Amino acid sequence: MPFPKKLSTFVSPVYILLPMPESIKVYAPATVANVTCGFDVLGFAVNNPGDEVELKLTSKPGVTIKRITGDNGRLSLDPQKNTAGISIFKYLQHYGIDKGVEMTLHKKMPLGSGLGSSAASSAAGVFAISRLLGRTETAIELLPFAMEGEFIACGSAHADNVGPALFGGFVLIRSYDPLDVVKIPTPENLFTTILHPQIEVETKDARNILPRFIPLKDAIVQWGNVGGLIAGLMLKDLGLISRSLQDVIIEPKRAILLPGFYEAKHEALQAGALGGGISGSGPSIFQLSKDESTAIKVGEAMEAVYKDLGIGCEVYISRVNTDGPVILG
Amino acid sequence: MPFPKKLSTFVSPVYILLPMPESIKVYAPATVANVTCGFDVLGFAVNNPGDEVELKLTSKPGVTIKRITGDNGRLSLDPQKNTAGISIFKYLQHYGIDKGVEMTLHKKMPLGSGLGSSAASSAAGVFAISRLLGRTETAIELLPFAMEGEFIACGSAHADNVGPALFGGFVLIRSYDPLDVVKIPTPENLFTTILHPQIEVETKDARNILPRFIPLKDAIVQWGNVGGLIAGLMLKDLGLISRSLQDVIIEPKRAILLPGFYEAKHEALQAGALGGGISGSGPSIFQLSKDESTAIKVGEAMEAVYKDLGIGCEVYISRVNTDGPVILG
Repeated sequence: MPFPKKLSTFVSPVYILLPMPESIKVYAPATVANVTCGFDVLGFAVNNPGDEVELKLTSKPGVTIKRITGDNGRLSLDPQKNTAGISIFKYLQHYGIDKGVEMTLHKKMPLGSGLGSSAASSAAGVFAISRLLGRTETAIELLPFAMEGEFIACGSAHADNVGPALFGGFVLIRSYDPLDVVKIPTPENLFTTILHPQIEVETKDARNILPRFIPLKDAIVQWGNVGGLIAGLMLKDLGLISRSLQDVIIEPKRAILLPGFYEAKHEALQAGALGGGISGSGPSIFQLSKDESTAIKVGEAMEAVYKDLGIGCEVYISRVNTDGPVILG
Repeated sequence: MPFPKKLSTFVSPVYILLPMPESIKVYAPATVANVTCGFDVLGFAVNNPGDEVELKLTSKPGVTIKRITGDNGRLSLDPQKNTAGISIFKYLQHYGIDKGVEMTLHKKMPLGSGLGSSAASSAAGVFAISRLLGRTETAIELLPFAMEGEFIACGSAHADNVGPALFGGFVLIRSYDPLDVVKIPTPENLFTTILHPQIEVETKDARNILPRFIPLKDAIVQWGNVGGLIAGLMLKDLGLISRSLQDVIIEPKRAILLPGFYEAKHEALQAGALGGGISGSGPSIFQLSKDESTAIKVGEAMEAVYKDLGIGCEVYISRVNTDGPVILG
């Protein structure tokens, strides 16, 4: 089918312009933000789970939400209250495009799980409208619109989920003011295990539990590890990645909100994980592994911990996503 | 002459064993530690200035210091009180080598300047004894002995000067406990300008002026920049290096001890520098530039500031050193 096809390039994807379709279906990945030592600055995308957005051109101007599936009725059908809806709206408004679109959103991941659910919808939405209109904006050009969606969802325009959701791979938010986003080359065959336990963690509580001041000596340990993690990813040095996946500042505070976290982490490392931590502000836990078979063992080991605790959980195993959003049809 | 020749490799130098000489002369580079955001974790070596160590095998066991030049008589001739002497002593002791060596040390840089003077001597000393004995230890193997020299000089076994002095290039000290040192691939043709103003800064004062606690939000800015700087160096992205060369935590405190610092920094950036900051704990100021002609202009611009202030200074221009110690003869 004649859809825009993606060419992969290093810093930012480039797209070939092909004839404009009437409708489009786009997948965008879930993301892990706050990658251990990289609190607020480092995130990555995974191949599973993720959200899907279907868009169709209509005669009615603006954005209409036709249907949302997989959210158990929790999300509003008002496009101004939906992260994908607002991202598409801001895109159309910014470019002065006088078109109407009707959206169907398939939530294929749990809400409030710390997996960048709102970011996946925003990224899918803004990528879908761009490609539906036969346009070619790059990930960095689409990022501000997806960040508007995050603003609706979180009250602040974070980029550590929408960044990796749009770019794929590991993404460093070097600075927010001005916005400076760097795609970090990532080893192939890096797999993730994500465990989402049935625990409620309010983002607000996860924020409030953090101290406003931290010891300088801990901050130095943390930025040594950030340097090591970035270098490890770029050198494809799994040992260095593993040694750098440490968080001496945020994790010790937030783990209090997550029963079973330390036990699951211990079992994951025993099962061969490179390392990991809390995904976003939780409750999901992520681990990185050198291959799929290890990632599966890590999932089984963590799942057993939560089974013993009598806490239900979902486990996702996938390769680290390196493509960002993709057109499904 | 039949000296060990160095083969350059990526992580750590490897050496070809050649017949043992009776004496050796080694150069080791000055180093910039606390590279802006990389306080305590990131340093790099420069081609100028640096120290020279001459060693000669003698019949008298242990280490004897024959002469020190360039120190204005400030350094002790007691090998147990000299950073190069102690490094050589620890090396011989560790390997149970029952040889005697006589050392001449040529200090070719100012003492107490924030340029890793003691580290250059230690690195030159331990590299010289290794090669004089026809041995082949790598930089990472020599590092602990050079750190013993730093312990004498500073009272703590820092590695952010001796690391780059031995490895060359940019070196990340990811962790001290356990010691984890990473050589960061560095763009070719990166030049430094170092200005050493005639200001006394006691390392103790420079330490005491730092807060024990810092705002978490500043720490996040700092580790975003550390990630950006490592990525920028490895991607050879001069723009990213430039944007990441920021220190929101240490510099604002220590600059108080350095009259003219902000003016010199401003003029350096105006003259085209990528960025820079305080070298070590000062008083030297470093700047990085994309080529030699810019580095020269940057030096002139900073020198003019100190001339106006009536403060004398020395300026060094050189390529970032990528080789570590070299055998001169």
